[in-house]
Amino acid sequence: MTETLITDKIDRFLTEVRPETPCLVMDLDLVERAYRGLAETLPTARVFYAVKANPAPEILERLTRLGGCFDTASRGEIELVLAAGAGPERISFGNTIKKERDIAWAHAAGVRLYAFDCIAELEKIARAAPGAQVFCRILVKGEGAKWPLSKKFGCSPELGVELLTRARELGLEPYGVSFHVGSQQTDAAQWDLPIERSAGMFKALAEKGIQLKLVNLGGGFPGHHYQAGGVPPVAAYGITIMDSMTRHFGNDLPEMILEPGRGMVADAGVLHTEVVLVSNRDTRTHRRRWIYLDAGKFNGLIETLGEVIQYKIRTPHDGKEAGPVVLAGPTCDSLDILYEKADYRLPLDLAIGDTVQFIAVGAYCSSYASVGFNGFAPLKTYCV
Amino acid sequence: MTETLITDKIDRFLTEVRPETPCLVMDLDLVERAYRGLAETLPTARVFYAVKANPAPEILERLTRLGGCFDTASRGEIELVLAAGAGPERISFGNTIKKERDIAWAHAAGVRLYAFDCIAELEKIARAAPGAQVFCRILVKGEGAKWPLSKKFGCSPELGVELLTRARELGLEPYGVSFHVGSQQTDAAQWDLPIERSAGMFKALAEKGIQLKLVNLGGGFPGHHYQAGGVPPVAAYGITIMDSMTRHFGNDLPEMILEPGRGMVADAGVLHTEVVLVSNRDTRTHRRRWIYLDAGKFNGLIETLGEVIQYKIRTPHDGKEAGPVVLAGPTCDSLDILYEKADYRLPLDLAIGDTVQFIAVGAYCSSYASVGFNGFAPLKTYCV
Repeated sequence: MTETLITDKIDRFLTEVRPETPCLVMDLDLVERAYRGLAETLPTARVFYAVKANPAPEILERLTRLGGCFDTASRGEIELVLAAGAGPERISFGNTIKKERDIAWAHAAGVRLYAFDCIAELEKIARAAPGAQVFCRILVKGEGAKWPLSKKFGCSPELGVELLTRARELGLEPYGVSFHVGSQQTDAAQWDLPIERSAGMFKALAEKGIQLKLVNLGGGFPGHHYQAGGVPPVAAYGITIMDSMTRHFGNDLPEMILEPGRGMVADAGVLHTEVVLVSNRDTRTHRRRWIYLDAGKFNGLIETLGEVIQYKIRTPHDGKEAGPVVLAGPTCDSLDILYEKADYRLPLDLAIGDTVQFIAVGAYCSSYASVGFNGFAPLKTYCV
Repeated sequence: MTETLITDKIDRFLTEVRPETPCLVMDLDLVERAYRGLAETLPTARVFYAVKANPAPEILERLTRLGGCFDTASRGEIELVLAAGAGPERISFGNTIKKERDIAWAHAAGVRLYAFDCIAELEKIARAAPGAQVFCRILVKGEGAKWPLSKKFGCSPELGVELLTRARELGLEPYGVSFHVGSQQTDAAQWDLPIERSAGMFKALAEKGIQLKLVNLGGGFPGHHYQAGGVPPVAAYGITIMDSMTRHFGNDLPEMILEPGRGMVADAGVLHTEVVLVSNRDTRTHRRRWIYLDAGKFNGLIETLGEVIQYKIRTPHDGKEAGPVVLAGPTCDSLDILYEKADYRLPLDLAIGDTVQFIAVGAYCSSYASVGFNGFAPLKTYCV
């Protein structure tokens, strides 16, 4: 079942190069396919890739060649994007939490577009990036998402209207509204309410003589391969979102941007790992086999936290008799368990030294990895 | 209240050097004091510092000079210890999950002492490190610990006896027993049951003609400064543990080793961070002020997970009027919130650009930090 989820290109790389485990292998053609899929389903929107999902230079270069834009969280990410060859006009400084000196640096580098969600951030932008285009992030409920968002980001639409009004007074260009419906959002209808709210803000500001131009639809587009039962195809998101946009904005559609992270790279990556230990202790203490891998929570698989995302796993013995297992990483940390509550079953023949692949791990994997916890090196990424 | 918890040496460094935030500042004299405290309270035990808690070279060098030994989790950590000047006879390869090629490498480097908890690991050691000293980790309940351990490590004492018997047949030296009572263990009485179990294993094996020599008492020794209500002084641990040892082993005491990690370095470190944003949004969406710092879950403060460990915080406005806050890190990740459920209160005057210190962050901080999530650099460590 899982075999077809690893592309021939990745499989050939694993067979021919035999890279040391653990490592992440990304198929850039799948990234490109995801980019084109998003761009085609919402042809009037511009795609700003959320660099934090996977900042591998090869990914940024491929997207740059395709004409993509970039949502960045820090000076570090902006530097990566510029190094990949994209100009500053293709960059959004999308983090609502920025140091003033980093804003000033980005402004000097030519970045025009900045996010904010409170007055203090707006004032920083006004001082450090005079005349910049700013968009206000509003807070919406993220139901239906695997990783619903907290209240960390966003203000109420009412405050947003006040702040965007203030932005003009501060010499900035009040440019638009953004929101985020939650990561791995499987219900495209969740975009409707924040689009309605955004349209309301456009209207309220128009009455003050301020013409907003942009709706930033955020991320939330899902990876397709790690969710049991599947998720809607990307085309369905386009139809539902465009339906909301025309319903709430009429024919006078604003600029739209998307910020896919997971939806762009999740399916394109395979985590290649090795079985370090198979432990059948005794039934007095352990009901199941424990399989210890050389990748764990601290070097690639942090998204197993809470066991919400349950990756599909390929082993060399797929199809043979399987039994229940607990899966854990290689560190001495007792939190470094991947799946204990989840009911994973793996072949009884799985043995020390076998390599095993986790499917659709391209997002939030390598950059989350620790700098060297327990003395294990950060995860290496190969792009093929 | 918190002022006295930062040493003059660290304060002088912060004032004179004004290091860029965020960074971790370790006072090596406090590490030395913790080492001496542990060594004095259990003078017959050898202290093996658990390198994973903080692998800064300066810490390893100081402990090497003091005569310390090292509990290591990987080839990477062994290399760090050897580079600090300690010989391989002072190293325990204490992870029960090791690649056979790493065992072979350690054996060639002169490391003699290896942990295991199942037959497959024992067989790897027998093949890759013939003649090595091995100790078996047993599983005990970790009540009273802030971070109780999972079932990831350890077997039953009954299986341990079988495995140590098998060790001799495999040409290894069955050397001892280890256990771990859980991290930040505030109840020294928790050592009693596993010591009793260990003594039982010594006896059972003696009847087979195998004389074990070592009880590895593991870690669990607490940091003192971040727990409300305080924890017992280290001397109390020594008394209670020695009482258990003599009660269960009589006068024929085995070698003992301790593996403090948190107990050695937690109190010695201060995380120096800057306020990036103070957000008073409106009461429609947010009840409290949000304070955003340039350190968060992914660059130093991962142990705020679950908000179990509640660090004391020093601000430039301590003593002035305070109000409730939510504390969060700088990334675009909605999980990057430090304290939301916990009832933190900070001065109303706290402003963007102020520096703030987290107290007793010396353990499980820098090495856990991500390699660059959201484009933020890993945490820098300064040892003074």
